[in-house]
This record gives sequence, structure tokens and C-alpha cells, in this order.
Amino acid sequence: ASSSNPIRVTLFPGDGIGPEIAESVKQVFSEAEVRVEWEEHYVRKKVDPRTQSFLTWESLESVRRNGVGLKGPMATPIGKGHRSLNLTLRKELGLFANVRPCYSLPGYKTRYDDVNLVTIRENTEGEYSGLEHQVVKGVVESLKVITRQASLRVAEYAFHYAKTHGRQRVSVIHKANIMKLSDGLFLKCCREVAKKYPEIAYEEVIIDNCCMMLVKNPTLFDVLVMPNLYGDIISDLSAGLIGGLGLTPSMNIGEGGIALAEAVHGSAPDIAGKNLANPTALLLSAVEMLRHLNLNNKAEQIHKAILKTISEGKYRTGDLGGTASTTDFTKAVCDNL
Amino acid sequence: ASSSNPIRVTLFPGDGIGPEIAESVKQVFSEAEVRVEWEEHYVRKKVDPRTQSFLTWESLESVRRNGVGLKGPMATPIGKGHRSLNLTLRKELGLFANVRPCYSLPGYKTRYDDVNLVTIRENTEGEYSGLEHQVVKGVVESLKVITRQASLRVAEYAFHYAKTHGRQRVSVIHKANIMKLSDGLFLKCCREVAKKYPEIAYEEVIIDNCCMMLVKNPTLFDVLVMPNLYGDIISDLSAGLIGGLGLTPSMNIGEGGIALAEAVHGSAPDIAGKNLANPTALLLSAVEMLRHLNLNNKAEQIHKAILKTISEGKYRTGDLGGTASTTDFTKAVCDNL
Ligand SMILES: CC(C)[C@H](C(=O)O)[C@@H](O)C(=O)O
Ligand SMILES: CC(C)[C@H](C(=O)O)[C@@H](O)C(=O)O
Repeated sequence: ASSSNPIRVTLFPGDGIGPEIAESVKQVFSEAEVRVEWEEHYVRKKVDPRTQSFLTWESLESVRRNGVGLKGPMATPIGKGHRSLNLTLRKELGLFANVRPCYSLPGYKTRYDDVNLVTIRENTEGEYSGLEHQVVKGVVESLKVITRQASLRVAEYAFHYAKTHGRQRVSVIHKANIMKLSDGLFLKCCREVAKKYPEIAYEEVIIDNCCMMLVKNPTLFDVLVMPNLYGDIISDLSAGLIGGLGLTPSMNIGEGGIALAEAVHGSAPDIAGKNLANPTALLLSAVEMLRHLNLNNKAEQIHKAILKTISEGKYRTGDLGGTASTTDFTKAVCDNL
Repeated sequence: ASSSNPIRVTLFPGDGIGPEIAESVKQVFSEAEVRVEWEEHYVRKKVDPRTQSFLTWESLESVRRNGVGLKGPMATPIGKGHRSLNLTLRKELGLFANVRPCYSLPGYKTRYDDVNLVTIRENTEGEYSGLEHQVVKGVVESLKVITRQASLRVAEYAFHYAKTHGRQRVSVIHKANIMKLSDGLFLKCCREVAKKYPEIAYEEVIIDNCCMMLVKNPTLFDVLVMPNLYGDIISDLSAGLIGGLGLTPSMNIGEGGIALAEAVHGSAPDIAGKNLANPTALLLSAVEMLRHLNLNNKAEQIHKAILKTISEGKYRTGDLGGTASTTDFTKAVCDNL
């Protein structure tokens, strides 16, 4: 799986601890001899009128050209006249599915063992339509938009993912007993797609019940697919089961195979620049990115080194109860390669 | 706390296991000499045109007249021409707040210890508006409605509840970073009310983060208040932490102090009529009802007997891993009174 030309990847180190954890990925990739050429783009301090956000047009063009990117945490500054950085990326790059594998890390104990599920979130519409208005003073409406096109697209992605990743079952999460039309349409699309994948088991679970089942017995789930807001909620809940957003990878997938891997945790400004951040989420996201690029050997090699380092427990960052620095941890991963 | 006249309470035994667990409450109340006169109302097989549901007009009148009711599980039959039983009750009785205390039961081990929180859910609007339409084929919109009036009302209730129940903190759960206008209005109302309760700590937590915190460390929370759908989700998640909906009480509160206590678990048709059901959720709901009626001594006495029975562990129903029947468990509670 090594081509003669290096693969160009757009890198958004992001804010706060972003540059430190991005440095960790660069070092691990370099040690593992992954032939990647990074195109680094930083979030600016002034709005680019062409993106209406602090992201430059050039940075978006870079992802479009390369077809693949890796992104650290970005904190959208408070204020008007610009759009959320995360939402801009999803919108401008057409990233329609957010894929979050969530698995227990051997040797890192939480209340749950053997969690191994993947949430696949519709990433473009639903409650995130941005359509809201004040009807009269004191009465506000927000629109949840569900379309057949976006629902089929993410359902297709989920079943295809299940099939190509050796998964057995897809659960669609919904509240169609209340939102009969919108979640009903989402369900209908999932049922249509399910028919094309007879080898994958299919079930429908109501969101409130799903949350209860997840905290009681998360091993009941395999692949979960759902509208935008439920995905936001369920993916964070699931991450909590195995230790938090500092330990879970995330991938955003767009039309034509464009992919943006990302650490979904915050930018942790309090510990930024202090060599204290845990680079695990970004490293695991980079592993997902390599799998997406079909660089499976490199992906496995790096993945094993990360898991081994966490499992050995000698080098753990502060968030995991240890005293290792970002660079200590990174060096340990490199040594384990 | 005993008046000369018995208190009239409307009782909806409900479907499936409902009648058996309602019988359990009646026996425990009788043994504890709570002077209650039950007005029993069953869900019918045909739609009452005055309620557009299987609930009779007389049953709703009964709750209105008595000001207090207790309700077992009700399964809304599938089909058109009638409304959901639960939603009809909330709407017709103006039950604006759903209050769900959630606490670890001593002696019943789950992954979590010392959970002790209360979710207070706005119960009338939000995503439950029932307003949905197809814009064009394949494009559906659902309206989330947030009003100042309903938001202030539930916020007031939450802070008043916190103050009168010795609670320290109210957390409002929202997604105002995305639904800036609707959840923004809800937040604004909570902030206004918070100012009137300087003795109660106030915080704002985003729903996805809240779910992660709840599974990592639920003891961080005290009273949580939120719009309808988030309440639906968070209350079930919380119940999962301490063992499930079979163990958690629920109270619905309306204008003028009307109150409907309810078991929120399902009607479990598979075990109905077999003397296998766990009456705990309905018993604990009945305890909340007594507290609401200011019958605090009786409430405490019954509460202690329930907790003691569960903690002793000798009589546990099948859902808790035991072999006791509904009547065994009920008898044990009566013996512990
Ligand atoms: C930061 C926020 C806008 C975002 C979301 O709500 O989608 C985040 O929670 C996420 O899950 O990526
Ligand atoms: C049965 C259903 C309509 C209901 C709801 O969504 O409110 C239930 O989940 C609840 O929490 O009482």
C-alpha cells in the first residue's frame, strides 16, 4: 500500500491544544514512514468574505483538491458576522455523514467493557437547518428539515459501511412516534436501503429507549444511523462510556469520497501550549483516515502502537489520570511502532 | 397529616401489567392506612369523540375534579383517528412539567453509585408541537415551538422545586449553540428566573455534553430543567443509570396544582396477568404523589418500606434478577411498613 508519490493531506491543526496534538500525528506518521505531505492551514483572525467564516477559501480548496483532510479542535469565536467553523466545513465540503467508531480501549478501565459500536450521523440537515424565526414576540419556531435525498444517502452509507467493515447490524435511531412525518421519512428511507442488504440485520430503536439501552448494555449495539441531532447526542454519550471525546476518532464523509478526519473534543485553552494534551483522539482519527485511503497496513501498525501505549499505562496524559506529557506519549507510541 | 375525609384520587390502572401493579399500590396504601378513595378509570376500546382518544371524558373530568391522579402504563393502539393516550393526558390536563426523580436504590447494584438527580421536562411544546408538513415530495419540516410563557413556567417550577426540596443547583440543558432562537429563548427564560433564586446555583450545559457527563459522572448533577425532547432523552438515560424505568417515579404537574403521578415504563404485554410485574415504579410514583399532597409522613413510611424491601434483596421480581411475584414483593413491602 505505498505509492511512489506521497499523498497530500490538508491539515488543520486548529486552536488551543490543536497544534500540539497535530505535531504528535506528524511525528507518528513520520516514524511509521507514512508517505504523506501535509498542507497546513490555520484558522485566521479575520473573516474571509468568500467563506463568511474564519476559514480561508484556500484551506477549503486544499481539502477539495486533496480529497482528504485532518482537523484538530476549532473554537468558533463568539460574535456576529461569521459562521461556526465546524458547520462551515460540513456545509462547504458537503460532508453528509459523520462516522464515529467507539470502542473500549484495552487497559483503560471505565464502567463499561467491550463497547464496540459506530454511530453514523446525518450531518447536513435536521435540527441543524439554521431555519428559525420569531412568530410573534415570545413565540419561536425552529425548523427540522428531513429530506429523502439526504436520508437515503446517509442510510446507504451506513449499510455500505456495515457491510465493508464486517458489521452485523444497523440500528436506526428515531422519534417517529412523535415526529411522524420527519423521522417517519428518515425511517422509510432506512427501510428501503435495508432491503438491499439482506445480510445485515436491521432494527429501529426510539431515541429515549436507545439512550437507556446504551447506558445499561452498550454491547447490544453495532452500527447506529440517525438524524443530525440524535447523532450529536448519541455519539457523545457513547464516547462517555469508553472515557470521553479525548479517546474517540471521528470521520466526516462527503460526496465523491471526500473525507475529513477530526478530533471532536474541545480546544482546551487552559492547557494549550503546556505539552499536557492527550493526542489520542486525533491519532485515532488519523488512523481512520488511513483506512479510508486504503492504507490498511500503516493504519493497523499505528493503531496497534496507540492501543499498546494506552494499555501499558506507563505513559498517560493528565486527562487519563497520568502525568505523561504530550511528547512523552507520542514518543511511547513511536517506540511501540 | 390525616384529614377526616379521605382524599379522592383518580386511578388509571392502564394496560398490560397496569392492573397488577395498581393493585399493589392499593394494598400498600391500605396497609399503611393512607385514607385514599380511588376513582378507577380504564382505557376503553372505542374512541370518545369528546377526547378524540380512548380516554373517556369522564376520566379526565375525574382528574380535574380531584386534582390528583395515579396512572399505570397505557399502550396507545396503532391506527388513525385517535390521539396518543399520554399526549392527550398532558394536553387536556395542561400538565406542563414532567418531574422525574432518579436515585440509586441502596442494595440494587448498577454501574453507578449515589445517583441523585431530578429531571424536570417541559411537557407541552418543543418538538412535540405536532406541527409537521411536507414542503414538496421528499422534503418534510417539523416545527419545534418554544414560547416564553411555557419556558418561564417550567423554569419557575424547577427553581421552586429545587428550593422546596433542599436541592442546591439547577442545570438547564440546551442546544442553543445550534438552535439559537428557540433554545436561546428557553435559556433566556431560565436566566431570568435564576436571578430570583440567588441561593440556588445555576449552570447551562449543552445536551451532548450533558449526556457524556451523565454517563461519566452523574453525581455532578442535581436538578436539570430542559425542553420537551431533551427531557424525554435525559430522563430515560438517567433511569438507565440506576436500573431502568421499572425503578423510577414520575410526576406530571399542571396549572392550579393538578398532579398526575405515573409509571413511565411500558405495559409489558408478554408478562401481563402472570403476577410477574415489578410494581416499584408505580409505588414510587405513588410516594411522590403523597409528597405532593403534603402527606409526608405516609410518604416517608411507604418509601422506606419499598427501599428496605429492595435493599434486603430477598423478594425481587424477574426484571431485577429475582424470582418473586408481584404479590410476594407487595406483601414484603407491607410487612416492612
Ligand atoms: C460544536 C458543535 C456545533 C458540534 C455539533 O453540534 O455538531 C459538536 O457538538 C459536534 O458534535 O461536532
Ligand atoms: C410514549 C411517548 C409518547 C412518551 C414521550 O415521548 O413523551 C414517552 O417516551 C415518555 O417519556 O413519557
